[in-house]
Amino acid sequence: MDYNPTSRNKVKRIPKRGHYDQKTIFEVLDAGFLCHVGFSIEGQPFVIPTAYGRDGDTIYLHGASTSRMLKHLETGAPACVTVTHLDGLVLARSVFNHSMNYRSAVLFGNCVKLEGEEKMHALEVVSEQILKGRWDESRLPNAKELKATSVLKFVIEEASAKIRTGDPGDEKEDYKLPIWAGVVPIVPTYHAPIPDPVLNEGIETPESVKGLFE
Amino acid sequence: MDYNPTSRNKVKRIPKRGHYDQKTIFEVLDAGFLCHVGFSIEGQPFVIPTAYGRDGDTIYLHGASTSRMLKHLETGAPACVTVTHLDGLVLARSVFNHSMNYRSAVLFGNCVKLEGEEKMHALEVVSEQILKGRWDESRLPNAKELKATSVLKFVIEEASAKIRTGDPGDEKEDYKLPIWAGVVPIVPTYHAPIPDPVLNEGIETPESVKGLFE
Repeated sequence: MDYNPTSRNKVKRIPKRGHYDQKTIFEVLDAGFLCHVGFSIEGQPFVIPTAYGRDGDTIYLHGASTSRMLKHLETGAPACVTVTHLDGLVLARSVFNHSMNYRSAVLFGNCVKLEGEEKMHALEVVSEQILKGRWDESRLPNAKELKATSVLKFVIEEASAKIRTGDPGDEKEDYKLPIWAGVVPIVPTYHAPIPDPVLNEGIETPESVKGLFE
Repeated sequence: MDYNPTSRNKVKRIPKRGHYDQKTIFEVLDAGFLCHVGFSIEGQPFVIPTAYGRDGDTIYLHGASTSRMLKHLETGAPACVTVTHLDGLVLARSVFNHSMNYRSAVLFGNCVKLEGEEKMHALEVVSEQILKGRWDESRLPNAKELKATSVLKFVIEEASAKIRTGDPGDEKEDYKLPIWAGVVPIVPTYHAPIPDPVLNEGIETPESVKGLFE
């Protein structure tokens, strides 16, 4: 399925980097769990980082019931959810052709507040997106905790991905310059887990955490 | 210097994580070079990832002159610039107390378009924020390239930082549970540089790139 390019989601700059198919967009979304949510209150834009989970063409967001962002979004106000992976510095011979390798997805839509079973399912989706397997290892939310948590469903209405990969591109006449050019990859890396200092004895590193290092 | 908390920049959720002093906010900004810019066109919020450079209380943004984002921002429309560093997964015994370690800064202000010397200075600031020393190694922008580039100055009007560090916090009664808890640090890591396949022979890795691995 494709999202048709409209004036809202069309990639205008360097159109060849734009993608509108769900497969490409979902791959960008599935490679992360941190998004930046944009909303506007009385003309003032806000951009807030938060975790997300994807389930089909739905993005789940969650947070404290008292969160200004969630209280605003649950009114169904227009929102933008952006996910960005920075993959490398692209160093060209000219300053002008310096760039970055990246994969980003920009989603447009509105939110609906969830309750009951759907709310619990959404929390599981977010948790599993952050760390697969952790949900079943943890003590699940109780009624009081669920009450203190808002969970929203953001249905993707329009979307695009923008992706740059590969080597630098320079002006033809610059290739003769004695200037180094190339790519420096950037990879978000998990370091060795730090157990809670008050962890009870005899509790081993769980499968979910081990899975990050496989 | 401090940014006074107002209804716009005050950290409402978990106020102890909020910071309003320039020192803390600038440290968050100086630790990165990728921001998410929020703006709103006819009520529709947009969130776009882009590079930035900081110089005092000014953030410089740049891009193609034809960029929709820059053309909108140069009108002085209200904008939000957010920088986020994800530092780790915080795994608690309960799902509810799962969290992340992070440092984020949310800035509010407006943009002004730059020309002439200030424009060139701003481009150098952005370049140096991405990779220190690279500006002097590269072929500098010529008149045609400068014309194709828009550079904006975003003066920070209000700002806040939000920071979480350290171990998980669980409900008192959950500490006895046989569930692993702790932190998994996440560190963006530079990998070995990949020279442009058509790089002329005898050009060594430059100091700027070596500096990333010191």
